Amino acid sequence: MRIVSDNLQITSKRIEAALSDFDPDPIQSLVLAAKEKGAQVIDINSGPLSRHPEEKMQFLVTTVQDAVDLPLVIDTSNPVAMEAGLEVCRGKAIINGFSLEPARLDFMLPLAATYEADIIGYLLTTESHVPPDADGRLEVAVRLYDEFKKAGLKDSQLIIDPVVAPLVWQDGNQQNMAILEVLSLLPDLLGFNVRTIAGLSNLTTSAPNLKTKQVLEPIYLAMLSAAGLDMVLLNVFHEKTMETARWCNALRSDAVFTWVTS
Amino acid sequence: MRIVSDNLQITSKRIEAALSDFDPDPIQSLVLAAKEKGAQVIDINSGPLSRHPEEKMQFLVTTVQDAVDLPLVIDTSNPVAMEAGLEVCRGKAIINGFSLEPARLDFMLPLAATYEADIIGYLLTTESHVPPDADGRLEVAVRLYDEFKKAGLKDSQLIIDPVVAPLVWQDGNQQNMAILEVLSLLPDLLGFNVRTIAGLSNLTTSAPNLKTKQVLEPIYLAMLSAAGLDMVLLNVFHEKTMETARWCNALRSDAVFTWVTS
Repeated sequence: MRIVSDNLQITSKRIEAALSDFDPDPIQSLVLAAKEKGAQVIDINSGPLSRHPEEKMQFLVTTVQDAVDLPLVIDTSNPVAMEAGLEVCRGKAIINGFSLEPARLDFMLPLAATYEADIIGYLLTTESHVPPDADGRLEVAVRLYDEFKKAGLKDSQLIIDPVVAPLVWQDGNQQNMAILEVLSLLPDLLGFNVRTIAGLSNLTTSAPNLKTKQVLEPIYLAMLSAAGLDMVLLNVFHEKTMETARWCNALRSDAVFTWVTS
Repeated sequence: MRIVSDNLQITSKRIEAALSDFDPDPIQSLVLAAKEKGAQVIDINSGPLSRHPEEKMQFLVTTVQDAVDLPLVIDTSNPVAMEAGLEVCRGKAIINGFSLEPARLDFMLPLAATYEADIIGYLLTTESHVPPDADGRLEVAVRLYDEFKKAGLKDSQLIIDPVVAPLVWQDGNQQNMAILEVLSLLPDLLGFNVRTIAGLSNLTTSAPNLKTKQVLEPIYLAMLSAAGLDMVLLNVFHEKTMETARWCNALRSDAVFTWVTS
């Protein structure tokens, strides 16, 4: 599994202020620290950026890539901000993302084609709801792939996100077990080894404390890893979760096992 | 997953001495502590008991069941010791176990029939080797089930052990990933919801230190749990592993999730 840092978020007061002041320092020190902790990809979660979307997203993307040479995920629902980000992104970007929701289909998929970007597709219904079960998710995956192909994209550009459910949902457990099933069935369903990503922090939304988060994240991450997950979006400062990610990779590796992970 | 304590082992010097002296105290304090830590079943691993097998096994079984009211797994390759243990076992015992190895087939299966015991079947070849891959294990499972049925046993008596491989084996990783696949395929293969068990301590044989063991056990346990494992044989004094087992059960439960595990 490749580690995607979810730490650069507009919901952080510090990042919000830095973006508002166009101050690169807090952003760069954050992503440098994330890389130090093992981030292999940086997700730039800017929110919708309703004011000055182009200027702000371009500031974010250039600020991050001036600090670290890691691939970027551009994570916004605003297609104007998305395109502005893609324009200045030096390496291959990942668009986060599209779904069956018409606005996302109409604006995000063409951007992936134009900028030859990879794109994350969420297993959500047209109304952006989580399907009720594994079958519902698989049905969405087929429709999503169909739209993806209609946009003229190559299989290798697709990354599917089954959308981890908060455990506090009434059916959170069943949803998250269904996700494991879906992950293992997707390659056969779509007929190629489609890449997958999951956002781990959703799992412990409303957890009573950080300790509980940090106990549950590694456990579900190991389950996701065993189901074949390719990329995980997580808080790279959760050390136990990161340690687990490294060991999962060691366990899944075809190489001879060694007792040391780096 | 039900927690089976693997702590009562003849390889422990203290237990070996207690058995040699027919001293119940060290054995009873061990199993009481194991129960306190969350053991739901006690595995009595007596080794082959080449001298005084009957007397020693009966001492072990009665000593344990005088201390704790938990189901017992009788774990010996010696059929004389096995039968002696089954004779004095008050509740439903679990025989550990049988394989395609002729001696095990000939002696262990009939004991399961006579004593109406459950029985663990190992996915090992006739020569007691681990099959090379998932297909090999599934083939053994079919042959094992065939022998099991010939002995007149009921499906509900069978518990399959896919035999966790030490990670230090050259193909340890691939073997252990194959086991996850096998666990999820067994119910369809055999046509009923066959119970499964795995011995977790095998995984970290030759680990350089206890810390490494205690980091890896929870990770692979979460993977086994996601694959549907029913029972796990482990060191109940490894707290992180036990905590993981409880959370795995919470995640797999159909009940509404709560943030507290007991």
